[in-house]
Amino acid sequence: MASDTMPPPIDQMAATILDDSPDSSALWAQFSDRVLIKTIVSRSDGGGGLAGQKVRVGGWVKTGREQGKGSFAFLELNDGSCPANLQVIIDKEVSSLEQLVQTGTCIYVQGELKKPPEGTKQKVELRVEKVIDVGPVDPAKYPLPKTKLTLEFLRDFVHLRPRTNTISAVARIRNALAYATHTFFQKHGFLYVHTPIITTSDCEGAGEMFQVTTLFSDAEKLEKELKQHPLPSESEIETAKLLVREKGDIVTQLKSAKASKVEISTAVSELTRAKDSLARLEDRSKLKPGLPQKDGKIDYSRDFFARQAFLTVSGQLQVEGFACALSSVYTFGPTFRAEHSHTSRHLAEFWMVEPEIAFADLKDNMNCAEAYVKFLCQWLLDNCLDDMEFIVKNFDKSAIDRLKMVASTPFKRISYTEAVQLLVNVTDKKFEKKVEWGIDLASEHERYLTEVIFKKPVIVYNYPKEIKAFYMRLNDDTKTVAAMDVLVPKVGELVGGSQREERYEVIEKRILEMGLPLEPYDWYLDLRRYGTVKHCGFGLGFERMVLFATGIDNIRDVIPFPRYPGRADL
Amino acid sequence: MASDTMPPPIDQMAATILDDSPDSSALWAQFSDRVLIKTIVSRSDGGGGLAGQKVRVGGWVKTGREQGKGSFAFLELNDGSCPANLQVIIDKEVSSLEQLVQTGTCIYVQGELKKPPEGTKQKVELRVEKVIDVGPVDPAKYPLPKTKLTLEFLRDFVHLRPRTNTISAVARIRNALAYATHTFFQKHGFLYVHTPIITTSDCEGAGEMFQVTTLFSDAEKLEKELKQHPLPSESEIETAKLLVREKGDIVTQLKSAKASKVEISTAVSELTRAKDSLARLEDRSKLKPGLPQKDGKIDYSRDFFARQAFLTVSGQLQVEGFACALSSVYTFGPTFRAEHSHTSRHLAEFWMVEPEIAFADLKDNMNCAEAYVKFLCQWLLDNCLDDMEFIVKNFDKSAIDRLKMVASTPFKRISYTEAVQLLVNVTDKKFEKKVEWGIDLASEHERYLTEVIFKKPVIVYNYPKEIKAFYMRLNDDTKTVAAMDVLVPKVGELVGGSQREERYEVIEKRILEMGLPLEPYDWYLDLRRYGTVKHCGFGLGFERMVLFATGIDNIRDVIPFPRYPGRADL
Repeated sequence: MASDTMPPPIDQMAATILDDSPDSSALWAQFSDRVLIKTIVSRSDGGGGLAGQKVRVGGWVKTGREQGKGSFAFLELNDGSCPANLQVIIDKEVSSLEQLVQTGTCIYVQGELKKPPEGTKQKVELRVEKVIDVGPVDPAKYPLPKTKLTLEFLRDFVHLRPRTNTISAVARIRNALAYATHTFFQKHGFLYVHTPIITTSDCEGAGEMFQVTTLFSDAEKLEKELKQHPLPSESEIETAKLLVREKGDIVTQLKSAKASKVEISTAVSELTRAKDSLARLEDRSKLKPGLPQKDGKIDYSRDFFARQAFLTVSGQLQVEGFACALSSVYTFGPTFRAEHSHTSRHLAEFWMVEPEIAFADLKDNMNCAEAYVKFLCQWLLDNCLDDMEFIVKNFDKSAIDRLKMVASTPFKRISYTEAVQLLVNVTDKKFEKKVEWGIDLASEHERYLTEVIFKKPVIVYNYPKEIKAFYMRLNDDTKTVAAMDVLVPKVGELVGGSQREERYEVIEKRILEMGLPLEPYDWYLDLRRYGTVKHCGFGLGFERMVLFATGIDNIRDVIPFPRYPGRADL
Repeated sequence: MASDTMPPPIDQMAATILDDSPDSSALWAQFSDRVLIKTIVSRSDGGGGLAGQKVRVGGWVKTGREQGKGSFAFLELNDGSCPANLQVIIDKEVSSLEQLVQTGTCIYVQGELKKPPEGTKQKVELRVEKVIDVGPVDPAKYPLPKTKLTLEFLRDFVHLRPRTNTISAVARIRNALAYATHTFFQKHGFLYVHTPIITTSDCEGAGEMFQVTTLFSDAEKLEKELKQHPLPSESEIETAKLLVREKGDIVTQLKSAKASKVEISTAVSELTRAKDSLARLEDRSKLKPGLPQKDGKIDYSRDFFARQAFLTVSGQLQVEGFACALSSVYTFGPTFRAEHSHTSRHLAEFWMVEPEIAFADLKDNMNCAEAYVKFLCQWLLDNCLDDMEFIVKNFDKSAIDRLKMVASTPFKRISYTEAVQLLVNVTDKKFEKKVEWGIDLASEHERYLTEVIFKKPVIVYNYPKEIKAFYMRLNDDTKTVAAMDVLVPKVGELVGGSQREERYEVIEKRILEMGLPLEPYDWYLDLRRYGTVKHCGFGLGFERMVLFATGIDNIRDVIPFPRYPGRADL
């Protein structure tokens, strides 16, 4: 094991380096001798100050070339901790070089950090003294050669694509946004609540949901079992019935003959056995292969949860229960839509951040959403600038400027009615969908508001009640509800939220108005029956935020394992 | 909206208080005027130093009583931010008191913090000047009266139970453990990866999995549709065929008659329309109500993902792909088992933390697991001591001592072979399952090792290969694999992990030995084909950790929405 074979000085060296690192990754030294490449090359001196130190590093070769007539090799090594590679030099005396220079080779090495000759780009390079492990690659077969590959091509290799510069940068940005999310809410006193994935409620009252079942596997098991042990025949059951009758007769006879207790109890237990055996046979004879049916329909009372169960489309309703007890809460988890959308903006499985705040109204909600989105942008500028620079260079020139603008500009806030007015007056663009009061704003309208009219994030609030969900609070005008959407350049709607209807009579009426049944929402109405509280919340589509930050075009490239109609690789 | 009606001085007061708070919840003032009760009562001076300040607070009344012949009321107010209540005093001149004193009433009030008379328990109390909102409760109907309720009873009220002292304390401890988890791994340079929830791989090769499908809803939709638009009859199809023939004849005639281009093209387009219409009818006539079948089996190629899909039992295999690219990663998400377990230790939906580390072996894995578990325990001592004190008082006297012991004691590490030796020699206890080399250690054995023999956490490593999964690295003895389990007092196994088999030939042989098919693991073998790397990882059952921390007996009480056979409320 590593530290058994590890010469003591390197251990200490690694610890020294790590202590010098600005974050607390020094702790890493508690359980590994390896130094992350980030710890070396992301220093303010580019790693130059570490010259003379001995370290162990591991990674995958990005590019390699033999030099000096094969006497040594230069490798660009990357371990995924940052976009930058570490330049590594290996002499042929240390290791045979032919395999090491192949793109995709994995190496784990130790050596000394040195200052490269003046005039080179690198501030530090590693001169290898020992190759600890090599994971070779056959360049003729490796699916990810050095040449530039399209993101679409890479979708067929979700298990290997994190080795590419783009997907690894996106993974680090996504990671940063996730931790920033937790940090923001924790700092503000919100409690993280795990809302259920499998649910028997339907939040929207209309969503296309995936069903969760064990009926198919139960039916398969039964089928197998019936092949091994066929159903009892009628004659088997008749025989078993006969036996019960015989054993019963014996008991009766013994009793009337006043036989000994021992004799009677023996006979009784034989009778019991015969009865049990008959009951088992009769039970088995009722088994039917295939899915369980009742009145010509699938009998879901035989399913795992004794009823139909689905994958959640939102944790909102459930997290409201926690907000009406713990006052400031949030959930961050996977959500699902079984929609047959083949667009670049939809996934069947995606992640949502959903805070819910008690003792708060729509304005507090907007304040919270604005503070959160700004915090995310500033976090990336503070913690992921190297990855953002890669993005700017390769995908979206304006990505960093966009983050800076959002982090520093107050969001414009306008009512839906004002927004419609502005859009109706637009003359320089013809929208596909005509704008009039009452319509659900389409992406083209939302993007025009934020990208063209205001050139900054816009919060649109107070939407017509007809186009919004039953749980949104009815405004005093009785025409609009206290809903709000945050629109940002590049993706349009990033956040959708509302103040929730806390008045029992009003929400009950709204449920009925919308033609929904009351019974499934009875628990939800309890929150209004007992100690009701003004509260609000919103949802941020996490992949939307990654799209916004990176400017990547297709949502399938910003989630590790995209799920969409016809595809669920791995 | 709140800040419109808010008198300016209070705003500033709130900000002052918040600036004084030790954590950064000052930021809260950005988007709410409310002060969390925690911010007042969790100060080192118990809030006494805040006397004279004006604040707004909200919460639910735990207990209330009218005093001084109904001239004022004392309320114990809790907002879920901490276990402690704030004592609130309201004069009858400010509000009618009858409703306010009912347990469960929600109030949002503003007033002045005051020092209570000498000799009282509280260090601060709030004298209310204005009641902003009240959410009343009918005490005759409220399901959670003041009397003590059992945890089992509360399981029927998952939407209201966070209002109880116990469930809210558990929620805060759970929240703290989740954020501690992210903080630990982020500080150590691990990247958070969202592994898929819907999967087409089966990690364990044997697990009982939930199936995810849209076949039932598709069949329902089809059935409805067929009721509205019945299948075409044979005569309809015959008529359509006839029309195609007629239109075809017309085209032929016109062509041979050398009719005008316009005439011909009109006839051709009529023919095309007739053909399209026939094709649609023929397609529809193939529709069959019910689930799609092929060769007597369900045709899963017609399901949403064009194949069978399941809920994940572990993100390990998928996160390995990221470890073999980004070197240090972890996943933290929901996992599922469709097992008909009715025990106090099993759930159908539960959360798992699964780090995966490249360039690391079993010893590094043990170091990481030990550092992580210690970090979690210390975090609770540092951040949740008030909740832990509640737990000690009400559930488990030794809970805090247990955390301190685990945080400060080096874990004992013994091989499986040594563990078996120790257990075989036990004379003071008879195990239900006999111990001999080769058995899977049962909970009784694990708990005996950690609770009786070592009285501290124990890591058992190098298990017989026969009882472990195919992906665990074969040791040089060819009998054991590099697996490890962390056992802790109270719950037994808390962590299970292993070094993964990185050698292509060895893992291929292991898959075949275990009677598993190679094809589904082809992508997993790619990780060994191309740039393979020594790596390891483990899984921590998050609810197990909450059980360990709180000493609560039933796992259904430490997850917000428990799912188990027959139950998936909400």
